[in-house]
Amino acid sequence: MSNRIPVAVLAATGSVGQRFIQLLDCHPYFKVTVITASDRTVGQKYGDACHWILPGDMPDWVKEMTIQPTSPEAVHCPLVFSALPADAAVEIEPAFARAGSIVCSNASAYRAAPDVSILFPEVNPDLTDIIPIQRSLRGWSGAIITNSNCTSAGLTVSLKALYDAFGLKKVFAVSMQALSGAGYPGIPSIDIIDNVIPLIKGEEDKVEHEPRKMLGKVVGNEIIPADFVISAHTNRVAVVDGHMVCVSVELEHSATPEQAVEAFRAYQAPEISRDLPFAPQPVIVVRDEPDRPQPRLDRMTGKGMTTVVGRVRPDPLFGLKYVVLSHNTIRGAAGGSIYNAELLVKQGYIK
Amino acid sequence: MSNRIPVAVLAATGSVGQRFIQLLDCHPYFKVTVITASDRTVGQKYGDACHWILPGDMPDWVKEMTIQPTSPEAVHCPLVFSALPADAAVEIEPAFARAGSIVCSNASAYRAAPDVSILFPEVNPDLTDIIPIQRSLRGWSGAIITNSNCTSAGLTVSLKALYDAFGLKKVFAVSMQALSGAGYPGIPSIDIIDNVIPLIKGEEDKVEHEPRKMLGKVVGNEIIPADFVISAHTNRVAVVDGHMVCVSVELEHSATPEQAVEAFRAYQAPEISRDLPFAPQPVIVVRDEPDRPQPRLDRMTGKGMTTVVGRVRPDPLFGLKYVVLSHNTIRGAAGGSIYNAELLVKQGYIK
Amino acid sequence: MSNRIPVAVLAATGSVGQRFIQLLDCHPYFKVTVITASDRTVGQKYGDACHWILPGDMPDWVKEMTIQPTSPEAVHCPLVFSALPADAAVEIEPAFARAGSIVCSNASAYRAAPDVSILFPEVNPDLTDIIPIQRSLRGWSGAIITNSNCTSAGLTVSLKALYDAFGLKKVFAVSMQALSGAGYPGIPSIDIIDNVIPLIKGEEDKVEHEPRKMLGKVVGNEIIPADFVISAHTNRVAVVDGHMVCVSVELEHSATPEQAVEAFRAYQAPEISRDLPFAPQPVIVVRDEPDRPQPRLDRMTGKGMTTVVGRVRPDPLFGLKYVVLSHNTIRGAAGGSIYNAELLVKQGYIK
Amino acid sequence: MSNRIPVAVLAATGSVGQRFIQLLDCHPYFKVTVITASDRTVGQKYGDACHWILPGDMPDWVKEMTIQPTSPEAVHCPLVFSALPADAAVEIEPAFARAGSIVCSNASAYRAAPDVSILFPEVNPDLTDIIPIQRSLRGWSGAIITNSNCTSAGLTVSLKALYDAFGLKKVFAVSMQALSGAGYPGIPSIDIIDNVIPLIKGEEDKVEHEPRKMLGKVVGNEIIPADFVISAHTNRVAVVDGHMVCVSVELEHSATPEQAVEAFRAYQAPEISRDLPFAPQPVIVVRDEPDRPQPRLDRMTGKGMTTVVGRVRPDPLFGLKYVVLSHNTIRGAAGGSIYNAELLVKQGYIK
Repeated sequence: MSNRIPVAVLAATGSVGQRFIQLLDCHPYFKVTVITASDRTVGQKYGDACHWILPGDMPDWVKEMTIQPTSPEAVHCPLVFSALPADAAVEIEPAFARAGSIVCSNASAYRAAPDVSILFPEVNPDLTDIIPIQRSLRGWSGAIITNSNCTSAGLTVSLKALYDAFGLKKVFAVSMQALSGAGYPGIPSIDIIDNVIPLIKGEEDKVEHEPRKMLGKVVGNEIIPADFVISAHTNRVAVVDGHMVCVSVELEHSATPEQAVEAFRAYQAPEISRDLPFAPQPVIVVRDEPDRPQPRLDRMTGKGMTTVVGRVRPDPLFGLKYVVLSHNTIRGAAGGSIYNAELLVKQGYIK
Repeated sequence: MSNRIPVAVLAATGSVGQRFIQLLDCHPYFKVTVITASDRTVGQKYGDACHWILPGDMPDWVKEMTIQPTSPEAVHCPLVFSALPADAAVEIEPAFARAGSIVCSNASAYRAAPDVSILFPEVNPDLTDIIPIQRSLRGWSGAIITNSNCTSAGLTVSLKALYDAFGLKKVFAVSMQALSGAGYPGIPSIDIIDNVIPLIKGEEDKVEHEPRKMLGKVVGNEIIPADFVISAHTNRVAVVDGHMVCVSVELEHSATPEQAVEAFRAYQAPEISRDLPFAPQPVIVVRDEPDRPQPRLDRMTGKGMTTVVGRVRPDPLFGLKYVVLSHNTIRGAAGGSIYNAELLVKQGYIK
Repeated sequence: MSNRIPVAVLAATGSVGQRFIQLLDCHPYFKVTVITASDRTVGQKYGDACHWILPGDMPDWVKEMTIQPTSPEAVHCPLVFSALPADAAVEIEPAFARAGSIVCSNASAYRAAPDVSILFPEVNPDLTDIIPIQRSLRGWSGAIITNSNCTSAGLTVSLKALYDAFGLKKVFAVSMQALSGAGYPGIPSIDIIDNVIPLIKGEEDKVEHEPRKMLGKVVGNEIIPADFVISAHTNRVAVVDGHMVCVSVELEHSATPEQAVEAFRAYQAPEISRDLPFAPQPVIVVRDEPDRPQPRLDRMTGKGMTTVVGRVRPDPLFGLKYVVLSHNTIRGAAGGSIYNAELLVKQGYIK
Repeated sequence: MSNRIPVAVLAATGSVGQRFIQLLDCHPYFKVTVITASDRTVGQKYGDACHWILPGDMPDWVKEMTIQPTSPEAVHCPLVFSALPADAAVEIEPAFARAGSIVCSNASAYRAAPDVSILFPEVNPDLTDIIPIQRSLRGWSGAIITNSNCTSAGLTVSLKALYDAFGLKKVFAVSMQALSGAGYPGIPSIDIIDNVIPLIKGEEDKVEHEPRKMLGKVVGNEIIPADFVISAHTNRVAVVDGHMVCVSVELEHSATPEQAVEAFRAYQAPEISRDLPFAPQPVIVVRDEPDRPQPRLDRMTGKGMTTVVGRVRPDPLFGLKYVVLSHNTIRGAAGGSIYNAELLVKQGYIK
């Protein structure tokens, strides 16, 4: 623990920022040495400035840390976890990358850029091959690496298992997403009690594109998305944590539900990312009960890093149907970023 | 009001039974003269036997009515509304039909039978043509007429508008269904707070078949379903009333979202069913806001009989996506049965 | 309807403001001619500026109305309904009163002032005797009249019935309050799903003082509160509308639960306020079922104006326990203000 | 671990039974060797018969265990944990005690008996002095030891700290209780979404009596309750786990909120029960934030065994007000029974 890499958490007081603090507590590789938040709170102690909304107390070590401005001048860390909102990330994250930091970002700002990977160690550790290209194209000594959108997370893991085993042609995905995905304060309570909201701004576009990029390849100077089509509907429901997605898939080589289950269960992370501290153990759990997964019961499977699949059955249009769940602020956000950073350490990008 | 037709409500103490009582209060055509419930409660007063779960008080006239056994011998009414569970309906509903009653049923027991119509007056009033055939095949002087499954209700109304205007090839439907659809006591609270249940037993099969039958035709001695394919996922969410469905459709003749909206708004009930007391006014409302329909805000549109559509937009796989909502215990259950009975009066089947 | 009094609604786009618009639709005495909202929205149409959060559509007549600034110069109405937040009300409401308007206010800003009545027509119509005194003390030609705090509303009605019949010494009150009481956006959803929040800022102080003032009398130049003591705990729960309060009372002359029920049921509004359009019919309903009132089932009793009492039973410390419910945004806010204004018309203060 | 005491769990498939299984997993003193459930499931494997409703999987070791009948003939264990419903417990628990087992019971059946202790190791370890008396009076070689009612649990711990420091005269307690307290299936979801239920049958009587008995003493042949009076209102709210209670207290020797906080924080379990595996660490946590405790955030404090107090403030009637929370199925049920059994081992009653 003595040689841990110093890291910064940007926007550490928000809902994803708090998850970073919680999950980085006692991390074997990383030690939080800098936290930043909005100008209004700079100079305050984290314990005073942060309205902690997670069950369990904030760790003691963070309470007395002083909030710094979110700028490379104030933060000298080789590794920076960014929980910035997308609009702020547009300018701030490149400033850090230019200054030499590796930015592991939850923001959507650069996910669509062809020279920025959406990294998912259990799915696509080779996408880090884009880092030297990004550096060369942009003149950075650091880099920006992103998470996927939180809804795409579990969906993509499940699609990867099918893609490898049977090939993929068409995907139909309808999400029922948790409230924590909207940040804090997020959705007003009066809008969601006894209700469903069938709109999450910008989300359907992300779910229709990010999984394809995550299953894509580095070709020349860019990441070329995998060649299948996704249609998405995204909805907000009265669930605290855990995004659930109903999925129908048309495979290239058709598979029975039993074969699909076998493919899900056989799926392993590539060797390089298999044994990292935040690696999901196992990558995918398939529940046999007819009414699972369920967010409240299954979201913490594998400490919130495992993708949980269930209800694998025939689909009259596309051949195969199932339901997939993953924890949106752990696997789909802070935990995913940390896993990314662990891989970057192993690959030598962070020292 | 003096010549109202005497009607019975079977299983009048359950959640759908209570909606019948509530909606038949002061009905211009029908007067509830007999109520039945489980053997355990026969002989009790409704006010004592019924644990009323609807907002608003039970009507005064029903409080003192005595609960009768659910048998044709105890019930002599030309019209019988059945809120029986499917397994009880299998034997009891035919007994009433044999004894000469028209049974307007919410049960799924006979919906799949080729000589039983799933009647939706704003969609398919001609399906009552099957009644003489049913009588002849089964030797009944009465008849069984069914509602659709509550999830199929709004979905089918929306599909009918598109079917008439553009033709239909493929339909993807993912529901988020209200708790009242599970009856009472229904879903245990601990199973649904902070949760979603991705299973409703038998529901996906119904949603994949009933809309096709409802858009079908009487050919020879049976109802032939319309020729398109539906894939359904059905889910339970923490909503009191109002089933919402995310829909993607592949049309025979492709349509822009604007053309689809126009078709939804132009859709009218056939003339024979347009002006009945329970006819939805209008049949379909299209909301322009990007985040509507929502169950809590929109379920009571048109007194709970109107189908509410929104988020009509392009779909990358099928061409068109939208969301549809209808009130599951009004349009999708008791209100629908009453509307059916009104049509049967107008068509002369009930006198 | 042709001679209706022109009225303004201040802060018409918020949650209480929307209730004013909804409840003033087709009011027999009042016609909304001016609506105001924050500077940001001045000049916009209400239909564009207002995110309508009530079930049912906004009335057509308001959609095209242009939002005005919240100042007496822009608003010339004899009657002004104020849904302003307390801090804004401090300066704005007196400006209207000075300019000659009667301000019927939901804000807490002036409730504690000894020359401002907390008017409850079914409880204390005589408190308007303070108006001439207020005018004389403050040099106003108009006046400020307030509602009670929403939690105090039903509590006070129930206490009034007991106070008149038996006298009151001590009151224990613990509230479970609805989300709509916090305005919009109000409570973040993630704070209340699967949770209770045991704090509503400033609320306990209001509940401990306002009912005493509402049962008080004009003596000299001020309203002297009634002489009993209240202890309050206030909590927020996951309910959309309807504040429920558990109450224990020590009476001056002890009463059995049966006698208390009799007093609740016998309670009538004073004659002057009994037959006004928004008068609760009846003032108090006592439910006999052991598990009522309940917010979802009982809040709309008497169109949301009736106070609903239940579980009247002995208390080992104070003698009597019960539960009371009232609709916080109808009886406890907008509906209460309108009822106040109706009384002021009848008393000749508004012409 | 090799010499663990063999224990039975009666009614192991219900909601409290499942908590026993979960919490006894790897217990250092006890090893579950027998599980019982309803006649209908006898002979089945636990993994097949039990609908597991807790987050996380059922432990592997229990899946293959065969369900036994709930009778002493089928169960030979020195220690029996009973999750039986009260009516079944009336006859079954004495049969086990007669046969020589120590029965640690969650049922209310014998809590009121003067020779049965409601044991709370951090409060009253000496109440086990009643065991020899109970044996002698009833002719048993085993014994029945009970938990408190789940609502009384945290309340009593907080009262004990005040009782020891200042003496107690009057207590006013209003609960907001979690759904898991009602067992499974428990409260129908449609009864609690957007609602509060102000009745929990029999609960107020328990809350008014059990804390007094728990703070009582063995005098002669019986336990004499402590001499103060409690008034309770009990309510059900839409919370999964965690009972919250609003409390006002009149002390013998008045205390400021600061003194009360000091007393809560200084409170320790008696030495004999302080270091047992299930002892709460610490017994009481006092939260300083003005809006805590909250069930979702604080129920797992001290692994669900700690009592969490907050909002300690003056009360205008009784002097002192506060809020207290404890986990109803851990501290208030299964965890409490296990802690009781640990104490009985230490005291030599179980060998």
